[in-house]
Amino acid sequence: MPDPRIAIVGATGAVGKVALRVLEERNFPLGALRLTASQRSIGKKLSFKGEDIVIEETTARLFAESDIAFISANDDISREMCGLAAKNGCVAIDDSGVWRMDMSVPLVVPEVNADDIDAHKGILSIPNCSTTPLVMALWPIHQVNPVKRVVVATYQSVSGTGAAAMAELDQQSKDLLAGNAVTAKQYPHRIAFNVLPHIGTFDADGYSSEEVKMLRETQKIMHAPELSVTATCVRVPVQISHSEAVNVEFERPISPEEARSLMGAFPGVTLTDDPSNASYPMPIDAADSDDVFVGRVRKDVSLPNGLAFWVVSDNLRKGAATNAVQIAEEVVKRGAWLREGVS
Amino acid sequence: MPDPRIAIVGATGAVGKVALRVLEERNFPLGALRLTASQRSIGKKLSFKGEDIVIEETTARLFAESDIAFISANDDISREMCGLAAKNGCVAIDDSGVWRMDMSVPLVVPEVNADDIDAHKGILSIPNCSTTPLVMALWPIHQVNPVKRVVVATYQSVSGTGAAAMAELDQQSKDLLAGNAVTAKQYPHRIAFNVLPHIGTFDADGYSSEEVKMLRETQKIMHAPELSVTATCVRVPVQISHSEAVNVEFERPISPEEARSLMGAFPGVTLTDDPSNASYPMPIDAADSDDVFVGRVRKDVSLPNGLAFWVVSDNLRKGAATNAVQIAEEVVKRGAWLREGVS
Repeated sequence: MPDPRIAIVGATGAVGKVALRVLEERNFPLGALRLTASQRSIGKKLSFKGEDIVIEETTARLFAESDIAFISANDDISREMCGLAAKNGCVAIDDSGVWRMDMSVPLVVPEVNADDIDAHKGILSIPNCSTTPLVMALWPIHQVNPVKRVVVATYQSVSGTGAAAMAELDQQSKDLLAGNAVTAKQYPHRIAFNVLPHIGTFDADGYSSEEVKMLRETQKIMHAPELSVTATCVRVPVQISHSEAVNVEFERPISPEEARSLMGAFPGVTLTDDPSNASYPMPIDAADSDDVFVGRVRKDVSLPNGLAFWVVSDNLRKGAATNAVQIAEEVVKRGAWLREGVS
Repeated sequence: MPDPRIAIVGATGAVGKVALRVLEERNFPLGALRLTASQRSIGKKLSFKGEDIVIEETTARLFAESDIAFISANDDISREMCGLAAKNGCVAIDDSGVWRMDMSVPLVVPEVNADDIDAHKGILSIPNCSTTPLVMALWPIHQVNPVKRVVVATYQSVSGTGAAAMAELDQQSKDLLAGNAVTAKQYPHRIAFNVLPHIGTFDADGYSSEEVKMLRETQKIMHAPELSVTATCVRVPVQISHSEAVNVEFERPISPEEARSLMGAFPGVTLTDDPSNASYPMPIDAADSDDVFVGRVRKDVSLPNGLAFWVVSDNLRKGAATNAVQIAEEVVKRGAWLREGVS
């Protein structure tokens, strides 16, 4: 089969840029690589394996000439672009929130539910960047001892919002350290030296959209509609990587040793768990890694069947670009193309 | 009765300085006010109500000439100083961790268990700065619907470690923003633009001492040995105020409306709970306030009797100095002196 022709839609964004690096690092087999972005970036160049690629407009023709498109854009643009890609025979792997709970769109963490890919109808969705690390940590245990209930509190980095939020955290920090006034544009309040229990929009029940995603997406990916998740999602002044404090109730008791053994053996999970020697996952260590890091594994002393742990993962990588590229690898492996004759 | 003679031991520390301001703000009735600190600060001056007070050495005589001492020092010094104070007839109100679980020492949040003060034998302890806000939020509901289980994840500011950690966060942030290397002295890792799931020391079960405190102290203060608390305590790059994501299971169902009404009516608790208008407690707003702020009150969707909320409190104030001064006010009100003839 010829190598697939790939397009990155939104190549200049925080996730798009990382997708380019991940394709390079994984030596993804490329029949072609085309990059698109919004109007103001067209004509600019991005480097890939030492070669400059000119950023072009996102058109029906581009999709007709591509086999897989990574789409990283806001919800409105994603909705339009994924439809256009699929209509033109290109498999869309989307990073936005618009398709995740669509019954006809597989929501995939390849280590967990790669088989769901086979049912796609042109669009595949990657989970929210706070859901993926949670599911990666839960799944290996869930296989032998089903998860009943999860309580999770997140510590999410500003790169989840995008490149402008990363710049704003730096600028606000500089201004505050210099004793100057700060302005907040990306968030309703200052994020520098502060924390905000506010990610997304709030529903009538008082949950944020990010918190609801952690429940619904986890149920969908793990095919576990009875599993309950209650989340508190919080933005913290960290540039890259989301951290999560997780308390889980399982059907039966589980020892920390067994949990460590199951999680540690799972592909894509790295245990960092020697707290007495100050060794535990931290955002600054997880950044630029594809793995999900788990530590602080201990019995939840408040429950007979309880376990507590701490998960950290680069939200731009396993939380977004790496997971998307892994899905593309599965599409290639499975020959799960939209149009005839690619494989 | 004559006004009590007060001493602040550790007056130049992060908590000691705030204690001085709190005494001033509350117009605490003072027969005398004396300040002590470590050797290198003796002779320096601190201002109180526009008057300079010279810092002196902590001696048996100082305690013999004082009625109440606020002691804010490390564990070893606190152990020694509290003993010395009590032996010399001075009621010690201690901020360290050494006395909290001592059966003969009342551990007091005045709004919750002021009556415990009457049983003191010379030493009173204030809870850890992460426990106090939790107990303040739980107690008003616990009175009508007992708490069974609490899952809490904390977002604790560096001022909990002290003034040197506050300076280190600033310095590391400046260095990182300038592209320079950083050094970490106060914590085993850099705290700027990072989070550390590590407060205190770790036990064999993998819990940190801070996490164990949240369980044991809550049980003691609330006289609820059956109540279980599982905590994950995390340091975040914030200067002042600790935040907590709290999930509670009660004996019976409770609506968010009832919970808000009970917490909002409780002295020392302020509700800030209009998330759709981006109104929720934040560390930068809670800093310099004596109140405990509660918001994001919602049903815990994963439990029939569950409630979730978000608590923020200035760890140097209600978490330390304000709580200590409130205990002193109760000692005065109750005439709970060590020596005869004060009241």
